[in-house]
Amino acid sequence: MRQTRLFSKTTKQTPHDADSVNARFLTQAGFVHQEMAGVYSWLPLGLRVLRKVEAIIRDEMDGLGAQEILMPALQPKEPWEKTDRWDTVDILFKIKSQTGKEYALGPTHEEIVTPLVGDFLRSYKDLPITVYQIQTKYRDELRAKSGVLRGREFGMKDLYSFHATQEDLEDFYQKALKAYARVYARCGVQAKVVEASGGDFTEKFSHEFQVITPAGEDKILTTENGTFAQNCEIATLREGDASPENGEPLACVTGVEVGNIFDLGCRFSEVFDVAFSDENGERHIAKMGCYGIGITRLVGTIVEALHDENGMRWPKSVAPYHVHLITINAKDEETLSRIQSAAEDVYAQLEKEGVEVLWDDRDVSPGEKFADADLIGLPLRIVISEKTLKEDSVEWKFRESKENELVKLQDIVENVGTWLAE
Amino acid sequence: MRQTRLFSKTTKQTPHDADSVNARFLTQAGFVHQEMAGVYSWLPLGLRVLRKVEAIIRDEMDGLGAQEILMPALQPKEPWEKTDRWDTVDILFKIKSQTGKEYALGPTHEEIVTPLVGDFLRSYKDLPITVYQIQTKYRDELRAKSGVLRGREFGMKDLYSFHATQEDLEDFYQKALKAYARVYARCGVQAKVVEASGGDFTEKFSHEFQVITPAGEDKILTTENGTFAQNCEIATLREGDASPENGEPLACVTGVEVGNIFDLGCRFSEVFDVAFSDENGERHIAKMGCYGIGITRLVGTIVEALHDENGMRWPKSVAPYHVHLITINAKDEETLSRIQSAAEDVYAQLEKEGVEVLWDDRDVSPGEKFADADLIGLPLRIVISEKTLKEDSVEWKFRESKENELVKLQDIVENVGTWLAE
Repeated sequence: MRQTRLFSKTTKQTPHDADSVNARFLTQAGFVHQEMAGVYSWLPLGLRVLRKVEAIIRDEMDGLGAQEILMPALQPKEPWEKTDRWDTVDILFKIKSQTGKEYALGPTHEEIVTPLVGDFLRSYKDLPITVYQIQTKYRDELRAKSGVLRGREFGMKDLYSFHATQEDLEDFYQKALKAYARVYARCGVQAKVVEASGGDFTEKFSHEFQVITPAGEDKILTTENGTFAQNCEIATLREGDASPENGEPLACVTGVEVGNIFDLGCRFSEVFDVAFSDENGERHIAKMGCYGIGITRLVGTIVEALHDENGMRWPKSVAPYHVHLITINAKDEETLSRIQSAAEDVYAQLEKEGVEVLWDDRDVSPGEKFADADLIGLPLRIVISEKTLKEDSVEWKFRESKENELVKLQDIVENVGTWLAE
Repeated sequence: MRQTRLFSKTTKQTPHDADSVNARFLTQAGFVHQEMAGVYSWLPLGLRVLRKVEAIIRDEMDGLGAQEILMPALQPKEPWEKTDRWDTVDILFKIKSQTGKEYALGPTHEEIVTPLVGDFLRSYKDLPITVYQIQTKYRDELRAKSGVLRGREFGMKDLYSFHATQEDLEDFYQKALKAYARVYARCGVQAKVVEASGGDFTEKFSHEFQVITPAGEDKILTTENGTFAQNCEIATLREGDASPENGEPLACVTGVEVGNIFDLGCRFSEVFDVAFSDENGERHIAKMGCYGIGITRLVGTIVEALHDENGMRWPKSVAPYHVHLITINAKDEETLSRIQSAAEDVYAQLEKEGVEVLWDDRDVSPGEKFADADLIGLPLRIVISEKTLKEDSVEWKFRESKENELVKLQDIVENVGTWLAE
């Protein structure tokens, strides 16, 4: 993509809602556009990141054998009354239609997915059933904040599993824990598995995935090197106590919850009578688990976890483009044309190999191009200038590194290929 | 995909909302699940169709040079007041938050996209700007009906274009008309370009794309062989009059509107002061066009246009799977095992070539399998039975044909490849 074609533009202006690093950088770099508190449009660069994160999640959910579906945001009132959540979920957006009928705008989908699956469930042979969706959720937050970390409208992946036995549920639960860990690792962030309250669903713990960053809202009791981690809401130990795992002193840190998984037991399947007959023809209520990943929040968390004072730092797995190709315009026509044609060549060769290239072909100063490249944060920057062409080379620099080196023009495609395959 | 793994099931029961062919077949075949009037969940088979239609649309929009973005459904009240549409759009869902703030649930996105693009527009050099999204829309319909044809929540592609001159807008408008025609043709349906009212936007006509089917709600005045077509709402001629195009008598037929395009002029860009400076530094308001395709409606329209009394008839471009592989179970173990292993072989070979296969491996009667295959409507049916294996063959039958033929096992992959490449 040629940067002059991109309708979004970078800006030096700090957005008025810049209460967080992600809001500031995503807005300044033209990845998102705020429409109101907690509600964003995703512009071309941001949408590319979102789609890549979604693809990673989809891949891992498919790997679990889950089937993708798409449920509506607009939901009837009745199932919410049945589960006693119409009046108790304070963040539930309620809508009254022209005809006076009331609807919910779904912050979650237990009320839809449970009777839906129930409609198809007959026998133990149908189980387990695991379905997921990548869909937009709504929360009537009193105060939306922290950019895309806590929105009123946000993207989520929610997976629901239905089982004949508690054992089968627990087995799947463990597999889901591992798939979730792979999702975060593939997105370039480290997420701790944290024990948390099971809410009103269960007396057992639920599990949260928390990325430790100062931008987080949750307080986590953990150690630097251990895996023991509890949400402070449920922790019986205190800061400074020895970790039961490794004896290290427990510290209180803040994290962003990028995922959670719950053993729901029969909380919802009982209400909607989601039952199956076993080998002997006896009826049983199915056990149920739910597993969420906040997708837009995860994108914001990647920014919070990976940035420096100049901008974002995207891992190659989810970067909007792999390579930022920058041409430094020369004054004399002949040199300019050599730079242009070398860049066109590199651009075409890389695109041919499936490498995604953003080419800064704008007529602005080198300083502005370098600053914008740092802000946008693509993992590899390749600069072509009069100076580099004298060596038949380009300047090659990774976003996270301070060093750069000259790479011969004829070696670029191979070097990029090697780097991407790493 | 093995059919026993699919959590959705076919049903002979006619759904209670079966006021239309699409609602009946999509529900009976397990493509969708109705959650309330006008609101559906998309199940695995239906979602695959939806994604393929979206991919075709995305491809054609990218071909126009448009950039994909994603705007929110939850929208602030203020821009709707600015355009005087808060109180005048009767199907606008309005939400009141906990804090008393009011929001709209977007049935369209002029109120969002216009100021958004305005924030990035500076000079004539930035124009044209063309952006689109594939996103969920909401309409507070008094009466939702006709299955997925008129929903309260539905998928849409909306494209918006911004231009420096009327000439440039008209040029793009013509290109969009052609891209739209390609979308419908690739989805296997014929859509007529119909002149319609420009609404309150313009005194000129707008253009609708109408698929002529009895399920339609719109009345169209047209001839069988001509391209002249007007929505009866604006037609000055009457049924039986001679068409100004070819002299054929005009007939009144019903159509489903699967797309529309409007020349908005400065209706919205004026309100949000979306301006640019020309070569001489003078400020002008940008001209604007909008172009919509109802995606979920298009899926329903394909069903209305392509079906027979036994079920749906998907074109290979958007069918959830290309091939329905059916094994007829034999009673003796040895024959059963030969059938199984032949099917596994065919399944693996086709999947390896990227052919999408739904394998009916259920333990039900041949009659039930054939009936379900007709209902689900995949374009090619391949049956393996004791009888066909005696000839080292399968029974090969296209959904739209009454004939079938024997095809040798070793020729299947090549024949399927040839058919898909047609």
